[in-house]
Amino acid sequence: MVRLIREHLLPPLYNERLAPLADAAVLPWSDPELVFTTDSYVVSPLEFPGGDIGRLAVAGTVNDLAMMGAQPVALSLALIIEEGLPLSVLQRVLNSIAATAEEAGVCVVTGDTKVIEHRHQAASDRAADGLFINTAGVGRRPAGVRLGLERVAPGDAIIVSGTIADHGLAVMSVRHGIQFDTELRSDAAPLNNLVQTLLDGGVEVKFMRDPTRGGLAGVLADICEGTGLTVEIEESRLPISPTAHHAAEMLGLDPLTVANEGKVVAVVAAAAADRAVARLRTHPLGRQAARIGQVTPARPPLVELLTRAGGRRIVQRPYGEELPRIC
Amino acid sequence: MVRLIREHLLPPLYNERLAPLADAAVLPWSDPELVFTTDSYVVSPLEFPGGDIGRLAVAGTVNDLAMMGAQPVALSLALIIEEGLPLSVLQRVLNSIAATAEEAGVCVVTGDTKVIEHRHQAASDRAADGLFINTAGVGRRPAGVRLGLERVAPGDAIIVSGTIADHGLAVMSVRHGIQFDTELRSDAAPLNNLVQTLLDGGVEVKFMRDPTRGGLAGVLADICEGTGLTVEIEESRLPISPTAHHAAEMLGLDPLTVANEGKVVAVVAAAAADRAVARLRTHPLGRQAARIGQVTPARPPLVELLTRAGGRRIVQRPYGEELPRIC
Repeated sequence: MVRLIREHLLPPLYNERLAPLADAAVLPWSDPELVFTTDSYVVSPLEFPGGDIGRLAVAGTVNDLAMMGAQPVALSLALIIEEGLPLSVLQRVLNSIAATAEEAGVCVVTGDTKVIEHRHQAASDRAADGLFINTAGVGRRPAGVRLGLERVAPGDAIIVSGTIADHGLAVMSVRHGIQFDTELRSDAAPLNNLVQTLLDGGVEVKFMRDPTRGGLAGVLADICEGTGLTVEIEESRLPISPTAHHAAEMLGLDPLTVANEGKVVAVVAAAAADRAVARLRTHPLGRQAARIGQVTPARPPLVELLTRAGGRRIVQRPYGEELPRIC
Repeated sequence: MVRLIREHLLPPLYNERLAPLADAAVLPWSDPELVFTTDSYVVSPLEFPGGDIGRLAVAGTVNDLAMMGAQPVALSLALIIEEGLPLSVLQRVLNSIAATAEEAGVCVVTGDTKVIEHRHQAASDRAADGLFINTAGVGRRPAGVRLGLERVAPGDAIIVSGTIADHGLAVMSVRHGIQFDTELRSDAAPLNNLVQTLLDGGVEVKFMRDPTRGGLAGVLADICEGTGLTVEIEESRLPISPTAHHAAEMLGLDPLTVANEGKVVAVVAAAAADRAVARLRTHPLGRQAARIGQVTPARPPLVELLTRAGGRRIVQRPYGEELPRIC
């Protein structure tokens, strides 16, 4: 996918706003700045514990804006519906879209609907299930908010807003027909208000990204590659629910590589780390926020996990089979 | 589709900006106003004479903005690619996206790519062909531009910027394996500069819409229903190419109901009609612009065609089988 995008998609469309391949682009506009993003959702099954494709589509686009420090102004919604999709499913998904948008304080202001012919169902986890959703979003951020990997420096703290791996494990457990005594639920949620709580707290945030596809390992690899610095995280500090831990073992997955859809990874100056965690914990979506590690100048630049056993493990960027389609 | 949208999609998502179900929504913003729109494209075949799904995706979204009197500021591009789509096809579509965006003077600033499993090909014209594209667009329009059916009054002139039915007939001819001596080409094109030429000419435009799905008949039905006034058009004034006329006969289609993707229907005051046509003709995309009819207070409100033979025919809004998927 990275090769497809870098070698085939980017060259013909190249321009300085697209080139960073960020979650969202800042428009040629100012005070407040306008931010613009898009995402398509092809998840199967369409509904899973804790959410559905509609909640995912709203949260995902709102979160792409929030990671740029922006509040959503408006969303678009484009549905591609396969003939035969039960109207009851569509209705539940639309209600979920409406509820999630309300949670984020934003409206769907424009849309499009296409109906396509029913196609044969494929068994793979990459098959879609009768409905594709695209959302795009416009957000505004106050002039002066500056976030970017160029601001990250040795000594900075790495913070995560809550338990990791929930979304991907919830979807994959349903897909594999595995049930747990304690319910495993997707954490899909719009993060704009949580992020605003952090920014309003006077915490100088340097960089934010939501650990979606590729999980925490993917975001840490982005930080490492984008800064040329090493990222050290401590296994004992990683928030993870016992059920998620158990599910990951059963599915043979490393929770570090599994997606969230309602968490933020933030880089802040070390001196601001305690305040950042305290601010996040004042918000219902940030109750389990934790400082999980730090940026160091160690060479060569790596992502390292300090294990409970006292060892060190190199964390690689996940690829291929490690990246099941969960959105 | 209209029932699906009005009865199922709109109620849970209801808000005053979405409710008009216009081509695009005006955002809560001012001076200049911001306009936002989205469209998905599922056309089959992906390539056809005069264009491809990429040109369509850029032109369609730019035109939704242009119909609101806005110039595009930025586009998003989301691809859903089926495994097995030849890379050469993807490359041509991307080049076409880049070229069409350049023609419109806008850039793709943000995007998303998903790959889904190959599905069995269906024979119907509603099957997609290995690639779905969504584009969303943000546009700006000068404060003070006011367009809307509430401004349309008896006596106003109806203008079309060129020959009708070209896009739909080009796509359907390919789909049915019909060839013509004179090539039938899609007219897919971004109209923002043509519209700007019209607006810069000091012509007071009251309403604009591009005759895409549903063709000219669909736009005239919108005007009639939205105003409660009758629309009269004259067959002898309708610009249509001889090849399109011939193709429509062979395919058993009424050209009035067949889509364009590079034409605008405008309503202007009668006194401004000649100037509007003259302005449109100064632009390469408007060479065959024509005044084709007028709005009258006749009751009941209908769309009427004054035929070459001197008769009158009521033009209905096309539906169902008359609406093959061409975008």
